[in-house]
Amino acid sequence: MSSVLAVDLGGTKICSALVNLKGEVIKQDTCLTMPDSGFELVVDRILTSLKSVIPEGEQPAGIGIAVPAYIDQCTDRIVFSPNLQWHDVDLKKKLEDHLGIPVWLDNDANLAALGEHRYGAGKGCNDLLYITVSTGVGGGLILGGKVYRGAFRGAGEFGHMIIDRNGPLCSCKNRGCLEALASGTAIKRDAQKLVNFGQGSRMFSLAGSVEKVDAGIVGQAALGGDPEAQAILSRAGRNLGIAIASVMNLLNPEMFIIGGGVAYGVGHLILNPARDEAYKNTYPPYRKFLKIVPAGLSSDSGILGAAALAWDHLAV
Amino acid sequence: MSSVLAVDLGGTKICSALVNLKGEVIKQDTCLTMPDSGFELVVDRILTSLKSVIPEGEQPAGIGIAVPAYIDQCTDRIVFSPNLQWHDVDLKKKLEDHLGIPVWLDNDANLAALGEHRYGAGKGCNDLLYITVSTGVGGGLILGGKVYRGAFRGAGEFGHMIIDRNGPLCSCKNRGCLEALASGTAIKRDAQKLVNFGQGSRMFSLAGSVEKVDAGIVGQAALGGDPEAQAILSRAGRNLGIAIASVMNLLNPEMFIIGGGVAYGVGHLILNPARDEAYKNTYPPYRKFLKIVPAGLSSDSGILGAAALAWDHLAV
Repeated sequence: MSSVLAVDLGGTKICSALVNLKGEVIKQDTCLTMPDSGFELVVDRILTSLKSVIPEGEQPAGIGIAVPAYIDQCTDRIVFSPNLQWHDVDLKKKLEDHLGIPVWLDNDANLAALGEHRYGAGKGCNDLLYITVSTGVGGGLILGGKVYRGAFRGAGEFGHMIIDRNGPLCSCKNRGCLEALASGTAIKRDAQKLVNFGQGSRMFSLAGSVEKVDAGIVGQAALGGDPEAQAILSRAGRNLGIAIASVMNLLNPEMFIIGGGVAYGVGHLILNPARDEAYKNTYPPYRKFLKIVPAGLSSDSGILGAAALAWDHLAV
Repeated sequence: MSSVLAVDLGGTKICSALVNLKGEVIKQDTCLTMPDSGFELVVDRILTSLKSVIPEGEQPAGIGIAVPAYIDQCTDRIVFSPNLQWHDVDLKKKLEDHLGIPVWLDNDANLAALGEHRYGAGKGCNDLLYITVSTGVGGGLILGGKVYRGAFRGAGEFGHMIIDRNGPLCSCKNRGCLEALASGTAIKRDAQKLVNFGQGSRMFSLAGSVEKVDAGIVGQAALGGDPEAQAILSRAGRNLGIAIASVMNLLNPEMFIIGGGVAYGVGHLILNPARDEAYKNTYPPYRKFLKIVPAGLSSDSGILGAAALAWDHLAV
């Protein structure tokens, strides 16, 4: 048994890989998800992608899959996935029926946390929160060296911690969730608002139109030195820092690991304000323990976590 | 081995008890702490209190102690305790030297959580947050059936979760901590403010002076039907509910248990608004799992948790 299959299933892309026990990717494939095409066709694309990385004459021992979904704790069925537009589907059984090898799946943020814990920035660290800042804000917890899923398998919704009860509406319909204040979507909203007020000319000229101003444009402008774009990212980072402080006070983890496309793209422009604000808002005796680091595996946290999930099941 | 000794050491009172394995208190003693008298004299009072509950001719196998303190994770020394005015003292060694039996200590909120988990409202429940609403707001976590202390033994500071980043100053010098919005101290502040504005006549007449208006008076007035006092408690309860929602989203515990003097005194006047607001602010798919209950052991959560701590160490 030299390798397992791993899939990071996103709303945009399907990444498949053949991974060894050290967490090295031996072969990799990426294709589009196209969730609009429906469950069956997405499953077909996963199968095609997986088959392209299986070496000839070898049958990997199992598959780990990272899914942007809430998964039922008893049945392993996907209860719902907004990004994939899935409700109550059995991806595990579908793939097992087709491939004849065991499939294990978990929420993508949980598996990114596991990936960083096993192979990345969190190696050797037993208690950590992995945070992903991308279109939304998500999280995955490692507590006592294991993925912590809570009593109902939904633990880790860091993006729905409330830091400003009078703050803006979140996609979940509550007010002042971190996701409404620090996600790519929030950054885009803030930047478009600025442009609509006749400011943010650098962002506007990079984008070409108000509608095209998004977190990517804000990042590009900020990295180029635009103070208005930098201020938007700094505000997002400070909001992130407030929620990190709350978690530091509640859980005392050894480390916070920040990943996700938006955070990865702009690095210290979000991380430094997050660190400053987290430090200030942490309960004073715990401040010296605060540690906030960027993800070590960049966009591979999820897929390597999926591989680690498979390896863990095979080792039992 | 039929019983252990347990102590709940508070800023006001020392409670000592002889407790059997079922969590039944066989004998109990209460005396004043008088922290102003200094560490040595408080230790003397603990010893006197303990000796009064030790049955003649029997040597209990060990002592568990609940301390309102932050305890060093390596040395078991008390790093600091604001309520006791202690800095870096070794209570464990002191008592062991005097009594010649092993002493184990932990933070009082952690042990209240353990007490409720073992003998109270949380029996049979593996993942819970115990919340105490008294002068301050504290918390203790049971995760996976065990007290969760985090990487630095400070986990559970539920009162220092930030729910309103522009909110009032907290005793820890940060803004918008739950403790600044839902504790006995916050309730007192809100009530005194009202009275100073010429309102809150019912509370004022119960207290006799502005300075004497406190959480107890607010509770008394509210239970007697005073709508102004009820509104203050309701606001505190709703703030509690916001922080509970954040924890529900982050940790998905099976249960939240509310204890502490203030909550115990007014019951549903805080619990119901907390439930309403927590429900509204919980990430929608998790709402159906939300469970908020009053403590089952009232003021005995801590002492029975201290007994459970001793039993657990003796069972190893």
